[in-house]
Amino acid sequence: MITPWEVSGEVNYNKVVEEFGAKLIGSLFKELGEDLPPMLKRGLYFSHRDFDKFMNAMKSGKRVAILTGRGPSGPVHIGHLIPFMVAKWFQDKFGVDVIIPISDDEKFLVKENLSYEEARSYAVENAKSILSLGFDKNKTKILIDFENTDIYRFAARVAKKITYSTAKAVYGMNDSMNIGWIFYPAVNAAHILLPGLLGYDATLVPIGIDQDPHLKIARDVAPKLNLPKPAAIHSKFLPSLIGETKMSSSKGNAIWLTDDEETVKKKIMKYALTGGRETLKLQREMGGEPEKCVVFQWLKYVFEEDDSKLKQIQEECKSGKRMCGECKEYLASKIWNLLKKLQENREKVKLEDYKFDLIIP
Amino acid sequence: MITPWEVSGEVNYNKVVEEFGAKLIGSLFKELGEDLPPMLKRGLYFSHRDFDKFMNAMKSGKRVAILTGRGPSGPVHIGHLIPFMVAKWFQDKFGVDVIIPISDDEKFLVKENLSYEEARSYAVENAKSILSLGFDKNKTKILIDFENTDIYRFAARVAKKITYSTAKAVYGMNDSMNIGWIFYPAVNAAHILLPGLLGYDATLVPIGIDQDPHLKIARDVAPKLNLPKPAAIHSKFLPSLIGETKMSSSKGNAIWLTDDEETVKKKIMKYALTGGRETLKLQREMGGEPEKCVVFQWLKYVFEEDDSKLKQIQEECKSGKRMCGECKEYLASKIWNLLKKLQENREKVKLEDYKFDLIIP
Repeated sequence: MITPWEVSGEVNYNKVVEEFGAKLIGSLFKELGEDLPPMLKRGLYFSHRDFDKFMNAMKSGKRVAILTGRGPSGPVHIGHLIPFMVAKWFQDKFGVDVIIPISDDEKFLVKENLSYEEARSYAVENAKSILSLGFDKNKTKILIDFENTDIYRFAARVAKKITYSTAKAVYGMNDSMNIGWIFYPAVNAAHILLPGLLGYDATLVPIGIDQDPHLKIARDVAPKLNLPKPAAIHSKFLPSLIGETKMSSSKGNAIWLTDDEETVKKKIMKYALTGGRETLKLQREMGGEPEKCVVFQWLKYVFEEDDSKLKQIQEECKSGKRMCGECKEYLASKIWNLLKKLQENREKVKLEDYKFDLIIP
Repeated sequence: MITPWEVSGEVNYNKVVEEFGAKLIGSLFKELGEDLPPMLKRGLYFSHRDFDKFMNAMKSGKRVAILTGRGPSGPVHIGHLIPFMVAKWFQDKFGVDVIIPISDDEKFLVKENLSYEEARSYAVENAKSILSLGFDKNKTKILIDFENTDIYRFAARVAKKITYSTAKAVYGMNDSMNIGWIFYPAVNAAHILLPGLLGYDATLVPIGIDQDPHLKIARDVAPKLNLPKPAAIHSKFLPSLIGETKMSSSKGNAIWLTDDEETVKKKIMKYALTGGRETLKLQREMGGEPEKCVVFQWLKYVFEEDDSKLKQIQEECKSGKRMCGECKEYLASKIWNLLKKLQENREKVKLEDYKFDLIIP
């Protein structure tokens, strides 16, 4: 079961791609160059819609944008950063404009116990966290729904093209949901189609595969509003420290951007599910199982850029030379290096510099 | 069948009141004084919800508002003015603040062939038409949804309290409707609850009985948001010139606020369904039937303020002394007197004077 609001059970990614009507990414990313970030070069982003077209538009100098957002239901944890790291990479390498919608309306409408005030306050807090990745203020805009309410003008135009039947089929909606939640897909599609409305020739949306229904709707509506179809690249779920399919904010094992060095270390030491054996002796004899290890996956998909270092870790693990403690410490230091930088940057981020002067006619 | 978007068949008003859970107005309006306007003193407004409570709040000096709006799907005809004439009367007599929401979003979402641009343009045009009745600019605010999009902030909070099941039960919605239309009741309820949010102690909504589902929803939601329950007075439908239950803009017989004197006369002469007999001779012998006559109903419910004059017309008609042509001319002159004043006022109306500086936290 995969919807933007619920993921349960084991995920068969090939089946999902087929069901969603997307395409496997294959070797497409290689055309972007040699210095790909871990999430692009090692298969975390595994499927796409029209990424080839987006790439061609970008390479031929057309006006392109990357759009990726966040629903602010609480503070930001490390897993939330991944699509923004991808966006940042595209911006650094290709100078692409980045638009970041923050859907405080969505989270307020969907989370029964999240108050309006909390949603709005998380929106600002989350925006700052995301911007602390160091986005270029001349090429990045933040759009907060309850702040930039003019989005409603465009969302209504999108909504007129989406029946409840369609929303039911695409999102598994049901009659006990509130009518704001039922409307929200139109706001989300409006976000996705916004670069097109603002005159961009192509839009790329890096998202978790569970968010693809929003893409599907946006792509269905686009031609009805004479707008270009947005492209997407889909990521698999990065497992939580304890090995759950999707990282969950509600569990104690999430690593928050505000965690200090000690806390990061403690969480990884305490929670991380590894591919280690029952005893050190056994592990020395049999070697570990990196393919079962969350620590290894985090290094592989996010934190270890160096291919040879990753390979070395993998081999030393399998040969029984490297113990789990060492890997955990290594991952903790990698994560802390990132968090430290973000925490320093955060102090300097001025949300005003990135505000969207949204003028929707 | 009665919903805010469809009225069909004969209407049994007593049954509707019972089904909607409202109350007949009885002699309540008499407590407002002797100089009631035709629509209040002669039964066009026939039912209510908590009007007694509103009246008590108003009389005891509490802060009260009248709220009545318009969905701008085309130009304004004379039938559309009725609730605004009521609001104006309350403002003139009791100094009540009036808030006028213009739901261009509703009409855009509901009317398949109405474009976004048309809806927005009618919103401005309709607002001017309504204001030409002469509302006090210090006590009257116009709120246009696609202009004052901050209403979305409040509408979302209202929407969270309304499930699709409820909307289905109250409005007869179905799955083939677009998700903007399904959301719209939350915007309408937000309008109705807005005075409460802005600190008014009581709100009165004069509406056609077909709009009562909006009131029902707003009253259900009010306590969940710690807001006072709005009161309403309901009008029967004023028949169209040709005798249809509800005046329809799409037919050629509507009298527009922009019609000139000749056109008004011609339309009434050509279209008005009277209670006259087949020949003048028969009418002189048998007398006319004012209870079947649209001209008489328009005089009774809207245009003839003078009770003795109305009685005289009725008696002269029934006795065969007064012919239909005379009544038609009389009505035409009454209507033209109003339109002439409105057309003069319209030139002077500055929408900016009435704009809502909507600050919804």
